[in-house]
Amino acid sequence: MAVGSETQEADRGQAVTRGGRRRGGGRAGRSADASMASTPLAPFIKRQIPCYDPFDEETLVRLENTADDILAEVGIEFWEDEECLRLWKEAGATVDGVRVRFDRGMVRAIIQRSAPRVFTQHARNPAKSVTYGDNNLVFLPAYGSPFIRTLDDGRRYGTIEDFKNLVRIAYTTPYLHHSGGTICEPVDIPVNKRHLDMIDAHLTYSDKPFLGSVTAPERAADSVEMARIVFGKEFVDQNCVVMGNINANSPLVFDGVMTGALRTYSAANQGMVIVPFILGGAMGPATMAGAVAQALAEGMVGVATTQLVRPGAPAVFGNFVSSMSLRSGAPTFGMPEPSLGTYAIGQLARRLGVPLRTGGSFTSSKIPDAQAAQESADSLMPALLAGGNFILHAAGWLEGGLTMGFEKMMLDIDHLGMMHTFLKGMTIDDNTLAMDAFREVGPGKHFLGCAHTMENYGQAYYDSELANAESFEQWRDAGSSDAVERANARWKQVLSDYQAPEMDAGVRAALDDFITRRKADMADAWY
Amino acid sequence: MAVGSETQEADRGQAVTRGGRRRGGGRAGRSADASMASTPLAPFIKRQIPCYDPFDEETLVRLENTADDILAEVGIEFWEDEECLRLWKEAGATVDGVRVRFDRGMVRAIIQRSAPRVFTQHARNPAKSVTYGDNNLVFLPAYGSPFIRTLDDGRRYGTIEDFKNLVRIAYTTPYLHHSGGTICEPVDIPVNKRHLDMIDAHLTYSDKPFLGSVTAPERAADSVEMARIVFGKEFVDQNCVVMGNINANSPLVFDGVMTGALRTYSAANQGMVIVPFILGGAMGPATMAGAVAQALAEGMVGVATTQLVRPGAPAVFGNFVSSMSLRSGAPTFGMPEPSLGTYAIGQLARRLGVPLRTGGSFTSSKIPDAQAAQESADSLMPALLAGGNFILHAAGWLEGGLTMGFEKMMLDIDHLGMMHTFLKGMTIDDNTLAMDAFREVGPGKHFLGCAHTMENYGQAYYDSELANAESFEQWRDAGSSDAVERANARWKQVLSDYQAPEMDAGVRAALDDFITRRKADMADAWY
Repeated sequence: MAVGSETQEADRGQAVTRGGRRRGGGRAGRSADASMASTPLAPFIKRQIPCYDPFDEETLVRLENTADDILAEVGIEFWEDEECLRLWKEAGATVDGVRVRFDRGMVRAIIQRSAPRVFTQHARNPAKSVTYGDNNLVFLPAYGSPFIRTLDDGRRYGTIEDFKNLVRIAYTTPYLHHSGGTICEPVDIPVNKRHLDMIDAHLTYSDKPFLGSVTAPERAADSVEMARIVFGKEFVDQNCVVMGNINANSPLVFDGVMTGALRTYSAANQGMVIVPFILGGAMGPATMAGAVAQALAEGMVGVATTQLVRPGAPAVFGNFVSSMSLRSGAPTFGMPEPSLGTYAIGQLARRLGVPLRTGGSFTSSKIPDAQAAQESADSLMPALLAGGNFILHAAGWLEGGLTMGFEKMMLDIDHLGMMHTFLKGMTIDDNTLAMDAFREVGPGKHFLGCAHTMENYGQAYYDSELANAESFEQWRDAGSSDAVERANARWKQVLSDYQAPEMDAGVRAALDDFITRRKADMADAWY
Repeated sequence: MAVGSETQEADRGQAVTRGGRRRGGGRAGRSADASMASTPLAPFIKRQIPCYDPFDEETLVRLENTADDILAEVGIEFWEDEECLRLWKEAGATVDGVRVRFDRGMVRAIIQRSAPRVFTQHARNPAKSVTYGDNNLVFLPAYGSPFIRTLDDGRRYGTIEDFKNLVRIAYTTPYLHHSGGTICEPVDIPVNKRHLDMIDAHLTYSDKPFLGSVTAPERAADSVEMARIVFGKEFVDQNCVVMGNINANSPLVFDGVMTGALRTYSAANQGMVIVPFILGGAMGPATMAGAVAQALAEGMVGVATTQLVRPGAPAVFGNFVSSMSLRSGAPTFGMPEPSLGTYAIGQLARRLGVPLRTGGSFTSSKIPDAQAAQESADSLMPALLAGGNFILHAAGWLEGGLTMGFEKMMLDIDHLGMMHTFLKGMTIDDNTLAMDAFREVGPGKHFLGCAHTMENYGQAYYDSELANAESFEQWRDAGSSDAVERANARWKQVLSDYQAPEMDAGVRAALDDFITRRKADMADAWY
């Protein structure tokens, strides 16, 4: 294999589960026999082809050195979080007001001392637990859009009913391994209570893993508390069952809302994803090399902070590095520069030895048109071949993340199915090499009816649900549909066929009681 | 660099221009100062990132051995071409009727003895000559569609006026390096005279390189003759100025029409592209490994045949390996199995040491919708990262090649522009690492106005002509366009702005005279 990844990781000579979590017993809420939505697929992907590593050692070292320069000379600020400043002072960093500077190599050493290289997030259905790190990939739906787009309604604000429907769709497909988090913003629920209904929907309408709230430390705490109701307090203390995804306030800042969530999840031994959010030319330099160095600096400090809170706490090194339109200053997606940056970050993350968030199916298009599909394909492929483990925004994303599209969701899911096949690689054995078939068929004949074709046909090729490969005449006579119209019919069919996974009645009642009590404690807040 | 390609080629210890062509003087038709269509871009791409090589030595050796098994045990048939049979008998192959069997390693040895690893195809405008092989990439438009699709007319048969317009578009963009061949079938011209008008259009409306006819040996001869008028007889004998692209009649057959064209071009020292055409399950096994071995066997025999005709004749090792819909038996495109097959073929071609045809922007969609864009992106990327040199069908392809789309052409061209940037890789130097900018801006500020951004902004990111990254409100207020509508406006603008390159009056008259005489020799044939 012409890859550095496997080799580098083997060379490290460290246990694959360095700092990994012990597995304990669950409790009633974990429905061992819950419906698998009739899929025989594994609960996540084990990549069987190598990563694409375009950059050489010298390049990677220069990027790492620049990250060290940034951390040593310029530093990172922690805003409104005295505890984070205290932790870093205690760890030996130079703290000057809210600015923290780090000796060269210090942050990397903290990570490599205790951060798990691989960890498992447990699902309510144990058969759907997922593992991050190494050659494992987990696809999650898009996150955080206030708007919904359907072919029927156009663009409108999202509601809790949309949220539930999107969770149902993600539950049904074998090509998403995770229920996600804020799959859309349910703007019909007060801002301060939304997280309760969102987590309830993930737990009720799916049995896959889910993300908790990060928008306030008490909402993060509620997320962990609801996980404890389902998984049991002791299990949660020893295992990752819920995760939070936070952004750095790039450039070079973490604010107290985000680090407050980080400290809550990490203290509870739950997973954190820390994501530098860099639109080149705005939150970072316009040149990709500098943006990558910045992403490395910010991401390392985020992951290291989790280890200061609780050594061994599971964490994912995230990144979100994009480009900008020269015409409008708007963020652009699927462009070549961030693709290259993603590959660089993948190589750097593997050298660091942490699970990596990359992704996903990005576009700036407002609709699921050719632009959206091209940009999504061109942003997803680098995410996968860079060695990403946690692929957020893998399905549904439109309009730079402002809109979750129902048809886009279905198109992306179909595309993710293709990626499942791609990442399995090509089987080489006597059957696939087909020498007997060549002997049987010979020159000038066709393979359509030969024994080899009959035996292999059913599993030979990915069977797209949405692509139309019919003849022009067949397609025209059936109504000349485009991909979006087919996707529209498909999500309606999926929701019509949907059946919820079972849940233990005691857990159900405990969740309801918790949500009712928490809501009663708060006045509605709408912003 | 974590690649095998460069290393392997260096290990071969052969001169890069093994068998390469000498460069001689041109003549008047070659307009040295012709308009460059206002582009500063190079006339072709020099890839500056490594190939993606997913397969290990053991896999590649098994594929090569299977190809040898096919050639030794089953063999290849040459139909209706006694001269080819004679050449192979003379070369030491076992000829049994039309069936030819090859000792193991024999075909490879013939190729490696004389086939150029790298060669140049000269353009009428010397500044637009292109080089195939090594890390060079040449993008060509789609080839051979009888139908045209525009947003205005829908789908209809192509005409010579469409042909001219497509040549004009390809001439104008810096992202296509070549004028292509049968850019669409001009069905309003008799079949037996079409090639004269097509080549005339390439020579008149463009000054980029072009492909000649392969549909009959005399049409191939006409193609070479027209090239001689433009480039001069002596120059043509010593340099490649026109190329033909032929398919094998897979499985394991070359018919006399195709090998007749091959013998014509190769004898004239002009370039041949030989393309196994394998839809898995029909013209080859349904398992990708076997299809790849077959492609290697057929492609090697095609390239070796050019070397028997004239040692040193320029040739490109082609491939076209696709998948099939399990529902309809129709060919499918952009699917994961052929992507993997393409990467394998890329590694095999580099071990063989020949220029490689891969590509292009394939889709089975009838229209330039999300399906078309996803499939095109997912089929183009492997073509590029597999080390393809001659990327046919890079722009315009719809409906499995039956339709050339004007809007699809523009969307693909924009996408090819992105690929130009991608293949350049990421610059790493003090400027791009931007340490001074980090020092200047610092935590929590933005980079929008800093000196580094001002200096780098203009070249920072690929500037898509067709992607819309505006806000929803801007986009809505401007008419809620989709990508296809923008592409429609764009091709009309390009044609409206078009200015033809100049041509020497003597050459013009000689071409006209030749075409008139040849047409007078033939009765119209319509099928």
